[in-house]
Amino acid sequence: MKIVALAGGVGGAKLAEGLAQVLPPDSLTIIVNTGDDFEYLGLQICPDLDTVCYSLAGLANPVTGWGRSGETWSALESLAELGGPTWFRLGDRDLGTHLERTRLLRSGFRLSEITQRFCQAWGIHVRVIPMSDSPIPTWVDTDEGEVAFQEYFVRRQCRPRVKGFRFVDVEYAEPAPGIMDAIHEADGVIICPSNPWVSIDPILAVPGIKSLLRPAQGNSRPVIAVSPLVGGEAIKGPAAKMYLELGFQPSALAVARHYGAQKEEGLLSGIVIDQLDQNLADSIIALGIRPLVTDTVMRTSTDRHRLAESVIEFNKSLL
Amino acid sequence: MKIVALAGGVGGAKLAEGLAQVLPPDSLTIIVNTGDDFEYLGLQICPDLDTVCYSLAGLANPVTGWGRSGETWSALESLAELGGPTWFRLGDRDLGTHLERTRLLRSGFRLSEITQRFCQAWGIHVRVIPMSDSPIPTWVDTDEGEVAFQEYFVRRQCRPRVKGFRFVDVEYAEPAPGIMDAIHEADGVIICPSNPWVSIDPILAVPGIKSLLRPAQGNSRPVIAVSPLVGGEAIKGPAAKMYLELGFQPSALAVARHYGAQKEEGLLSGIVIDQLDQNLADSIIALGIRPLVTDTVMRTSTDRHRLAESVIEFNKSLL
Repeated sequence: MKIVALAGGVGGAKLAEGLAQVLPPDSLTIIVNTGDDFEYLGLQICPDLDTVCYSLAGLANPVTGWGRSGETWSALESLAELGGPTWFRLGDRDLGTHLERTRLLRSGFRLSEITQRFCQAWGIHVRVIPMSDSPIPTWVDTDEGEVAFQEYFVRRQCRPRVKGFRFVDVEYAEPAPGIMDAIHEADGVIICPSNPWVSIDPILAVPGIKSLLRPAQGNSRPVIAVSPLVGGEAIKGPAAKMYLELGFQPSALAVARHYGAQKEEGLLSGIVIDQLDQNLADSIIALGIRPLVTDTVMRTSTDRHRLAESVIEFNKSLL
Repeated sequence: MKIVALAGGVGGAKLAEGLAQVLPPDSLTIIVNTGDDFEYLGLQICPDLDTVCYSLAGLANPVTGWGRSGETWSALESLAELGGPTWFRLGDRDLGTHLERTRLLRSGFRLSEITQRFCQAWGIHVRVIPMSDSPIPTWVDTDEGEVAFQEYFVRRQCRPRVKGFRFVDVEYAEPAPGIMDAIHEADGVIICPSNPWVSIDPILAVPGIKSLLRPAQGNSRPVIAVSPLVGGEAIKGPAAKMYLELGFQPSALAVARHYGAQKEEGLLSGIVIDQLDQNLADSIIALGIRPLVTDTVMRTSTDRHRLAESVIEFNKSLL
């Protein structure tokens, strides 16, 4: 069984890690959001790609969810002494990644090639592909004006009220090599519990991806989302706040509506929701989407493994 | 008394530190070689400037002579895991310096402005000026072809036989702001015990500097070199090897000849040589250069202080 997973940062990385535990390496392709990539201190930073890869490689910081374990902070301290910008926290080990990625990009390598090379070096056996080799920066329209994603997310800690999102130049971008084939061959697509607005929508906006996710006539490949909202709250990040500010009641039902039902020109055949949201199951069924109710909060490696198994079983049941 | 010192890396930094101990802050201007500056991992690295500043700020690594004390190496380790280049050793704290300098250069600041800003942040009260704001990369002509300086110096550990040096585009460069005024006002110029070929000659090659160092008619401002060669050997680095490969017997006498006597269209009025080289004093006098014989090896802070005092006294005696 071949599975494609769409992932953003921390939540997506956790489920991706679970799926990598459960599936044989050549059965899993993880497509990662690059909409929050940005240049900082002259370095090309790919936060979601790194979070996913560090998680898969066992290098992730288990406390923060982002960055690396056993990290040191000397470079940033020295930069701070000189009055340089430190609002984006770059650890020393993490810096090694950004320096080498930036060097390779300047040497003419594509981001997808670099990612493959890094995965090899880190002993990651599943396939990780950035959504595109072209930069598609996410800008956030807010009541304080339009700001670049990391400005909104990190520097201003998601304080401005959100009015919309723009994935700059996405219309000129292509999916990175390997993505279309992987989706084409997939027996199931998992939308990880990442922020629908700024982690998954950027991937879906890359020309060609969304339409290929919709199964062709007579093809029953499931597309399953795992809700990042549990009891109306996001486990991490501003997803719930964004739904509210955009005029929606944040809930797993809102996530189901966000992606839409496959049979109604949307994407989903199923959605995995938390036991806390059991009361939403009937409304989800009414949308034409099959719900799976289970414990979706991933605190430990065992949680990730168990949720990944449930999702794979759910996918089989929808085939 | 106003003093200008010309300095390269480790040896120059040590005497510069001594001079900074001995002279009032507004009496000392240190002009630093930038011929060994280069871009590495997309960062602008200025090894001599950093060695001088770290020494003056008390941040230098006392064991290596270059880099910072209390350094960590996480970024380089992480870069090495990814197969990136690690032949130039960049510590994490040091990286903070390069990241901020590179950021400021890209923002349009001149290297001399950035150096001033860094000196302020590091609590350095004497004036440190890079020889020029324009890049003047040193290339080394060798029996294995012409190579960029750091390729020769660090990557190939000075193994190729030297045939000559080229200071690329030096004819289009200008001294950095403040240099000409400082030399003009100086009551003495000290050429620190740095490599004459690749640390001091690049400074002297910047249009305008050398001719201004030669005193105008009736002006008796001394120019004093401190020999980097002691007993025919360099304290550190390839200076002796270079003299040999270029056909000269390496010695304090060769250094004296290298810069030449002021009265013979050269630069020097005096040279400070080590007690080990006392036997060369007469030959130096025969060149028309006054020798000062003293202990020139700087192992401790006290050594640096004492040598700086001797040099300043020597300068006074030559006024």
